[in-house]
Amino acid sequence: MRTHYRHSLDHLADQLQVMCLSDRAAIATATDALLRADLELAEHAIDRCRQIDTTREDCERAAVRLLALQAPVAGELRQVVTALHVVGDLARMAALTEHIANIARRRHPAHAVPDTLAPLVSRMGEAAVAIATNAADVLGSRDPHDAARLDGQDDTMDRLHHNLLTAVLADDFTGPTTTVVDLTLLGRYYERFADHAVLVGRRTFFIATGEYPDE
Amino acid sequence: MRTHYRHSLDHLADQLQVMCLSDRAAIATATDALLRADLELAEHAIDRCRQIDTTREDCERAAVRLLALQAPVAGELRQVVTALHVVGDLARMAALTEHIANIARRRHPAHAVPDTLAPLVSRMGEAAVAIATNAADVLGSRDPHDAARLDGQDDTMDRLHHNLLTAVLADDFTGPTTTVVDLTLLGRYYERFADHAVLVGRRTFFIATGEYPDE
Repeated sequence: MRTHYRHSLDHLADQLQVMCLSDRAAIATATDALLRADLELAEHAIDRCRQIDTTREDCERAAVRLLALQAPVAGELRQVVTALHVVGDLARMAALTEHIANIARRRHPAHAVPDTLAPLVSRMGEAAVAIATNAADVLGSRDPHDAARLDGQDDTMDRLHHNLLTAVLADDFTGPTTTVVDLTLLGRYYERFADHAVLVGRRTFFIATGEYPDE
Repeated sequence: MRTHYRHSLDHLADQLQVMCLSDRAAIATATDALLRADLELAEHAIDRCRQIDTTREDCERAAVRLLALQAPVAGELRQVVTALHVVGDLARMAALTEHIANIARRRHPAHAVPDTLAPLVSRMGEAAVAIATNAADVLGSRDPHDAARLDGQDDTMDRLHHNLLTAVLADDFTGPTTTVVDLTLLGRYYERFADHAVLVGRRTFFIATGEYPDE
């Protein structure tokens, strides 16, 4: 019974890591779709995001089953409760990625992102992939040091987001209003994606230590 | 012991309702701040939102304590796990409200919302207050019929949000790019506020019935 319980806890932890790696793959695809104005890639990213939402339901059910059947305490209770929060973050990362892919789909065959800003949006995509990679590593290792490091890693994204808004608001920006709206939302989606990845790190730190890293 | 446990569960449920009523008050104030370009009101809304985040921490701790000390099962386990999710939604509603108030603060003494669109944004504020009122009622009554009704109530907000974007993208819209950015974000914040209030309803339906209402 105890072995089965341990196995269920480990399986839940593995599923979270798989979900995070799916988020990473999805946002890489969504960014490609956006920058190449590629409809097929956009739809591929959207499908992937919907699959992640199915995994969310499986994970939530597994966590509640563990609470109901095993009544975990102390560190294991912390792990299960945190898994519920982390699942929520990982699902939001997928939902935000779906919004990004939807913008690519909506503007197809036109490009949502003007050529001049493509390098910046490309860097936001890379930053999102990097932070999701680190979040997945932390979910695998549950090392509080790695988890604490993740905490500052959205600075890069925040800076890119700031640069994007500055470019949109600059006097020499000549794009149509649709582009302003798209870029405003894209900036927000990438930034929120990074925020949730950071939360995954903070929560994993909490599992390991019972405390949250300093802000 | 059992009575104390029941009391703790009820207290947690009460706190969620109080949190939701605070969200309602905060978004009403933030909308006023926005439409009147009133710095004092904006700061008042921001303070209130931060207080709500403190309540979130209290509620999360209370829920985990219940899981640890009482190992609830069946309906009561559902209630505690759902409380953890609902607390997350109510905290997001406060964070989104804070973003709205921050836009009012950032543009002060100018108006973030042009006069022509003030009535529309005012209706979005009213829709947010209405849906938060209903969510608070549902948290109080835990009536699955009321909870299911909440499910469709973001249609009004979705329509207003669509109208706002249409107005911003119309040929005769003459506002500066800053205003386009602000209105795009404001639309998103009000819409997400309503989404989370609907989730509160869906989750409360789940506590009462063990299932989610049909989409």
